[in-house]
Amino acid sequence: MSNAASEHAPVVALAGGVGAARFLRGLTEVIAPEEVTAIVNTGDDREFYGVWVSPDVDIVTYTLADRVDSERGYGLRGDSFQVVEALGALGHETWFRLGDRDFATCQHRSLRLREGLGLAAIADELRRAFGVTTRILPMSESPCPTRVALHDGSVVHFEDYMVRDGAPDTVERVDLSAAEAATPSKGVLEAIENADTLILCPSNPVVSIGPILALPGVRAALSAARAPVVAISPIVAGAPVKGPADRLLRGVGAEVSARGVATLYRDVADGFVLDQHDAEQSKDIEALGLATRVTDTLMKKPGIAASLARHVLELAAGLR
Amino acid sequence: MSNAASEHAPVVALAGGVGAARFLRGLTEVIAPEEVTAIVNTGDDREFYGVWVSPDVDIVTYTLADRVDSERGYGLRGDSFQVVEALGALGHETWFRLGDRDFATCQHRSLRLREGLGLAAIADELRRAFGVTTRILPMSESPCPTRVALHDGSVVHFEDYMVRDGAPDTVERVDLSAAEAATPSKGVLEAIENADTLILCPSNPVVSIGPILALPGVRAALSAARAPVVAISPIVAGAPVKGPADRLLRGVGAEVSARGVATLYRDVADGFVLDQHDAEQSKDIEALGLATRVTDTLMKKPGIAASLARHVLELAAGLR
Repeated sequence: MSNAASEHAPVVALAGGVGAARFLRGLTEVIAPEEVTAIVNTGDDREFYGVWVSPDVDIVTYTLADRVDSERGYGLRGDSFQVVEALGALGHETWFRLGDRDFATCQHRSLRLREGLGLAAIADELRRAFGVTTRILPMSESPCPTRVALHDGSVVHFEDYMVRDGAPDTVERVDLSAAEAATPSKGVLEAIENADTLILCPSNPVVSIGPILALPGVRAALSAARAPVVAISPIVAGAPVKGPADRLLRGVGAEVSARGVATLYRDVADGFVLDQHDAEQSKDIEALGLATRVTDTLMKKPGIAASLARHVLELAAGLR
Repeated sequence: MSNAASEHAPVVALAGGVGAARFLRGLTEVIAPEEVTAIVNTGDDREFYGVWVSPDVDIVTYTLADRVDSERGYGLRGDSFQVVEALGALGHETWFRLGDRDFATCQHRSLRLREGLGLAAIADELRRAFGVTTRILPMSESPCPTRVALHDGSVVHFEDYMVRDGAPDTVERVDLSAAEAATPSKGVLEAIENADTLILCPSNPVVSIGPILALPGVRAALSAARAPVVAISPIVAGAPVKGPADRLLRGVGAEVSARGVATLYRDVADGFVLDQHDAEQSKDIEALGLATRVTDTLMKKPGIAASLARHVLELAAGLR
């Protein structure tokens, strides 16, 4: 198979962390994993303990490799924490709990960056080393940290907001200016352009999908794409399945609902999949110009992610 | 206590790895640990997996902290190896078995180096974090890798020779040119000058004590020092207690014996402590101009290191 062939995937999904990873795992049970490209948020990336951590890229990689710690939703199953504990004993802040094998992944990434490789080539090398045949493409190779402005006037890196401070409900504004000034990784716009189906995974619309959409050219490419764009709501019954999407949606003045998410996506999405708990919002979402599909989106039970993926693909097929 | 006071130690010992560390532990049972300064070889230092490893400095620190893995003689007791194993799975050579907590030590060192601190300040910070009151002073802050030239014409870093290749008996020459061109750490020459007792620990004379002696000014400082210099033989009954000293002594054309070591040290040492198995060599060593003391130098049983230290201090006292 030539590179060109392997880089053309019929299904291209914009992805954040846990929710996206679970959905992608279901998707790759329904269609061949190598037919999927995940364009993954790097707005959460940051150096911790001297190693470059790409949380969403690694969550997607570990999940597709069936190596993720499902309890935590991130990190490697069965990992230990000797390195962070020892660094803690040497005076380092250790609120970012990076497991030992996870540390090795990030140390490898840092060494490759130092050798001059880009994040995309490194993510590709890592996913192959983990036996993942789905293409995992970091959204950008430039640093594009998402920052969160808080009511007290402070502006902090997303990891500080999320992990260190426990995602307080005091979001004033989300600053995606770094992503807005960054360049999409080579292949991102082409993947969107050439896709048969485009999916916005059930990730945080503000800080996971938001940074990808903020990259120059991405919204335009999605709008111009020949493929239908189907989004999946990460909000069920007025609350996020996981994480602080409620606090971030409020922070950007959006409603914490499937409808609120659909509103954020209405300029790029053609279809919208929402949970059965929110069925009554379908009409409002259709009024935004989006075709809808209602199903079970809670991917905690086996089989739901695959079933959700089937619904997404069917909705997309009907929009083609 | 002022810095000046804390930096003046009556006993200054030139040290390599395992043998030196065991001896220093005994020495600090006999005199107050804070009265000892160890000037430690850095010729073995090297980056592994992106972190700066100072094997001898860490062996001495861990041993004095009673944290060393006594079985191996290096590394931390009870350490795990998740990071190197995970790096191995990503394609890295993993013949250098760095434990996870040991990795954290070295990562901390690397981060501090990147912040602009020198090896001496970092070693000081680390030994304090490990609760060690003996001053541990890396011999130099410049990289001074010891290289080993082999019969086949190749010249390799000491770690390659020792750990990767298993210390073959094909040493043509030991290359200390990096140490010869380096600068001793601030305080090394002063410590030698101000000491009441100077000790050459029972370490490999070629690749552990040798690099320290090769630093500009060190041999001269030892010769000019007002304090007596007492060396301890690392060779017992014609063989090293641990490590490849036999192969390296042969490589530099020296005899593999207490007498051979004494010959290498005769320009700087005033006294020489040798093992009871080698008592018959005392006369030859005295003929070199060194006072001798014969005792049990095998520090595997409890109490021997302290007893050896007492002999060293007594011999030194008699030479003052």
